[in-house]
Amino acid sequence: MTFGERLSAVFADRGQLCVGIDPHESLLVEWGLAGATGARDFGLRVVEAAAGRAGIVKPQVAFYERFGAAGISALEEVLAAARAAGLLVIADAKRGDIGSTMAGYAAAWTGEGPLAADAVTVSPYLGSASLAETNTTARAAGAGLFLLAATSNPEAAELQTARTASGATVAATIVERVREWNTGETLGSTGVVIGATVDLDALGLDRESLVGVPILAPGFGAQGARYADVRDLFGPATGGVLLSASRSILAAGPVDIASAIATQAAEVAEAVAA
Amino acid sequence: MTFGERLSAVFADRGQLCVGIDPHESLLVEWGLAGATGARDFGLRVVEAAAGRAGIVKPQVAFYERFGAAGISALEEVLAAARAAGLLVIADAKRGDIGSTMAGYAAAWTGEGPLAADAVTVSPYLGSASLAETNTTARAAGAGLFLLAATSNPEAAELQTARTASGATVAATIVERVREWNTGETLGSTGVVIGATVDLDALGLDRESLVGVPILAPGFGAQGARYADVRDLFGPATGGVLLSASRSILAAGPVDIASAIATQAAEVAEAVAA
Repeated sequence: MTFGERLSAVFADRGQLCVGIDPHESLLVEWGLAGATGARDFGLRVVEAAAGRAGIVKPQVAFYERFGAAGISALEEVLAAARAAGLLVIADAKRGDIGSTMAGYAAAWTGEGPLAADAVTVSPYLGSASLAETNTTARAAGAGLFLLAATSNPEAAELQTARTASGATVAATIVERVREWNTGETLGSTGVVIGATVDLDALGLDRESLVGVPILAPGFGAQGARYADVRDLFGPATGGVLLSASRSILAAGPVDIASAIATQAAEVAEAVAA
Repeated sequence: MTFGERLSAVFADRGQLCVGIDPHESLLVEWGLAGATGARDFGLRVVEAAAGRAGIVKPQVAFYERFGAAGISALEEVLAAARAAGLLVIADAKRGDIGSTMAGYAAAWTGEGPLAADAVTVSPYLGSASLAETNTTARAAGAGLFLLAATSNPEAAELQTARTASGATVAATIVERVREWNTGETLGSTGVVIGATVDLDALGLDRESLVGVPILAPGFGAQGARYADVRDLFGPATGGVLLSASRSILAAGPVDIASAIATQAAEVAEAVAA
């Protein structure tokens, strides 16, 4: 099965909530945990709580990498547990490099090694076409990519609204490339990252053009976007949105996180169906 | 000392050659090595050969990350050996994320952990200003950043020549941001990555504006740029260029690599002085 087909099945079975696994230093402290072992225990608890209540988890690699090899080893355990629990795993790594080097990252995150995930986020600063080979490699492994398109941080507009020679914005150019790669798929195997707090119109992004494109949308909860607004934000493309929340779920703490996930998954289901 | 001051000292003592440590799969095979242990031995041999013959090494993180935690552990050993040998180390990681997440990467690569390097490459897809806090963190640790500006791959032009609202190209906007951060420094502590095979004029990059900016310039050797052309390429900014070569040095194999580094360091010194 392709990544797009697997994502469709997860949406149908478990809904569109994506639970971030972000062992930020302040959250580790709140949870009474510390170090690489703490980040491992944090991730394993989120996986356990998500299993059966949500379909998708998104570990943020930076919060493991900060502990070096010990942190990456912890992440390997979290990824293995998530796969074993039947969760779809998106490694939020935002890697991006030239072809031969990017093959190293593709091998790491979409291959068969200990960091293998169902999909990985990638950064197109070197041009969306520079990721073509990575995209092919990922698809051959039944995995997916999410290309950064429009991010929610205020400093992003300068670059992401810049106009390419064709007159389109950088963000729109990336969506166009992804659509090309998804030709013939109902729900594509290549997605984009679009923050849930961005102004799609200011970015030159047409909602119709996003139909059938998996949209990883961080920014729900603590960053200010509300699940109830998802249809206003994405319109006809809402069916492909992964509504991603991290801090608003993780702040529930290790005891209450399972009920927080169940509650938010229900809110997401209601918002998407509205 | 600031990173800029340390880089100046290395340039004066050891010259401007930067030796890439890229344990690409095909090179590992040529060297008779395999796996994470092979990537470690490869890196340790390059460090040993570079010590006393060049001043700067640049391990490519992707080629270690592909082995997961075992690869990152190998990289930790290579980084420690390079520091112990008195080499200036640039981790070629091209990380880039929003502020709170980027703090995790800054902690990993410019902090005091096992992956600490003298500088790290970062990707500005989220806007150059999104890296301001990372830049401050790195400087506080005496470390440097190199922001991707103009890369040598053919697919890069679409995004990197796009025009921001101010009318400048994306690449020029990033150089401008770096200049701002380097205010008051003779050789800045924040640098840019500009491929040695790019057309600076087509990218809207003014050579005068690059004076005093450390320029990490991959593309020498196997990718086609020649050391002898460095003054034609970078003009008055040549004194800040790190002439980076990987495959053309590494292909010498484990026995001949020391003499290859010595020869190329001499060629670089001659080209820079010309």
